[in-house]
Amino acid sequence: MEELLIFGHQNPDTDSICSTLAYQEIKNQMGIETKACRIGAISEETQYVLDYLKLEAPVLIADVESKNVILVDHNEFQQSANQIEKANIIEVIDHHRINNFHTENAIYMNIQPVGCTATILYEIALVNNIEITKKLAILLLSALVSDSLLFKSPTYTKKDEAVVKKLVKLIDFDIYEYGLELLKAGTKFDKFSAREIINIDTKEFTIDKGKLEVAQVNTVNIDEFLEKYEKNIIKEISNKINESSLALHVLLVTDIVNNNSLALVNGSISDYFGNSLNVKIVDNKVFLPGVVSRKKQVVPFL
Amino acid sequence: MEELLIFGHQNPDTDSICSTLAYQEIKNQMGIETKACRIGAISEETQYVLDYLKLEAPVLIADVESKNVILVDHNEFQQSANQIEKANIIEVIDHHRINNFHTENAIYMNIQPVGCTATILYEIALVNNIEITKKLAILLLSALVSDSLLFKSPTYTKKDEAVVKKLVKLIDFDIYEYGLELLKAGTKFDKFSAREIINIDTKEFTIDKGKLEVAQVNTVNIDEFLEKYEKNIIKEISNKINESSLALHVLLVTDIVNNNSLALVNGSISDYFGNSLNVKIVDNKVFLPGVVSRKKQVVPFL
Repeated sequence: MEELLIFGHQNPDTDSICSTLAYQEIKNQMGIETKACRIGAISEETQYVLDYLKLEAPVLIADVESKNVILVDHNEFQQSANQIEKANIIEVIDHHRINNFHTENAIYMNIQPVGCTATILYEIALVNNIEITKKLAILLLSALVSDSLLFKSPTYTKKDEAVVKKLVKLIDFDIYEYGLELLKAGTKFDKFSAREIINIDTKEFTIDKGKLEVAQVNTVNIDEFLEKYEKNIIKEISNKINESSLALHVLLVTDIVNNNSLALVNGSISDYFGNSLNVKIVDNKVFLPGVVSRKKQVVPFL
Repeated sequence: MEELLIFGHQNPDTDSICSTLAYQEIKNQMGIETKACRIGAISEETQYVLDYLKLEAPVLIADVESKNVILVDHNEFQQSANQIEKANIIEVIDHHRINNFHTENAIYMNIQPVGCTATILYEIALVNNIEITKKLAILLLSALVSDSLLFKSPTYTKKDEAVVKKLVKLIDFDIYEYGLELLKAGTKFDKFSAREIINIDTKEFTIDKGKLEVAQVNTVNIDEFLEKYEKNIIKEISNKINESSLALHVLLVTDIVNNNSLALVNGSISDYFGNSLNVKIVDNKVFLPGVVSRKKQVVPFL
């Protein structure tokens, strides 16, 4: 058979990279050779997993024209590789809404409303009698820690929880110690420019009032983060609003220790953000207690 | 929880109806109450299953606005219920391509490239420790017989075959005897007008040359079928070509005993059909030896 590529979404997060490597391992045990790929840079958080497991990152690829591909952790073509329209999509394993996705023929799609792709991969491993090696377990757990902010996000479901419990028991692993180190690794921005920081994890969408962008970064201390980066970040947010004609830019600075966020709110419809979330913005800032999930706690209100 | 509807596609075939009833049984065993529905008339073939199992047909529904729904055996909105865009789609279990389908949030989607929805339902039953009652087994087997023309269609996969073998063994059932009776039941057209016959199972699509329609009916004897229905059917095909501005209408009259088809080919681009399938059309007719699957053996060439 021709080469079969597996990859996650653009701007890959830990779930996209770890699910790629985990599914490669599962397929390998099933006797199916695949090539683990990625379509964006490895984050500091993800690098922590790769270093811990002494693994190479998936191969960075430019486009997928005429390739056989398996999509993990995404399905929307605009979040996928260049030329995805001309690829031969073989499978999709994902936990997101279906949008702008279509195929010529029936393919294998396993989409579930869970917090993490890794949860679905664990089920696939079970059904196919795959041996859960320590490497495979830690890949899956890393994705689960990352997507759930160490099990505290409202996106974390009972099914995710059950998988974490089984995996932790199987390999006798201190997931809280490992998980905190993993998340902390993702809060180091020394190598990043201000523009890179606001682009680490960002979602753009359009409502009737205009184009919005909601970005998110994790930190262990919001005050320290602001002290270090706020001035340059605000300048870059302002540039980005102009360049991309954004009506609103929100940067959620999320405290992964205490599980709160500070939102930096900029753009011509900043008031709309305040009204939508029923909060008062002062000096383009608002503290959001208990808010850690952009997807569940912010975007639905906009 | 609010009412949860399960239904298959418009113009429901035996897979759509039996998968609806089978999934209701599976959900019931999981403690989830559902309402089995349908969005079109029961075919003679499907009625045979209902009579055999002494089951009521799923409830005919008009539209699904604001309803919680599970789609089986389809996903394309244009093949689904009225107001499907305004329904709350909870799950999709299907074996077709994904097209014109989207959701607001992640949902449970189990799509597999197999010959029949019933094969996927069997896997779901296994994973959830569902008891395969005789009723459930016969519902699944009926769908499998119907979609595979008693296991002879090229759409019938190894995975479908494995499920049939397991189910037959489980309930100790003469599937060939039952299956032939089931298919034969679908070849009785006494209650149908000529227009109804050509509309029993029809797919419309558009290519650069214009709008095409490929319909299919099953028979146990092609000559007898033609003798009885040809004259009126040709008249109705001609009417339909005019009414719907079709460039091509093909009716496959499929011999389910000998596994061949006769194609009645009409429309301004009849030559295109002959050239595409590399066959010679005489008097708007061509015999297609070994052809039983519209999806695999006809449509891909058009």
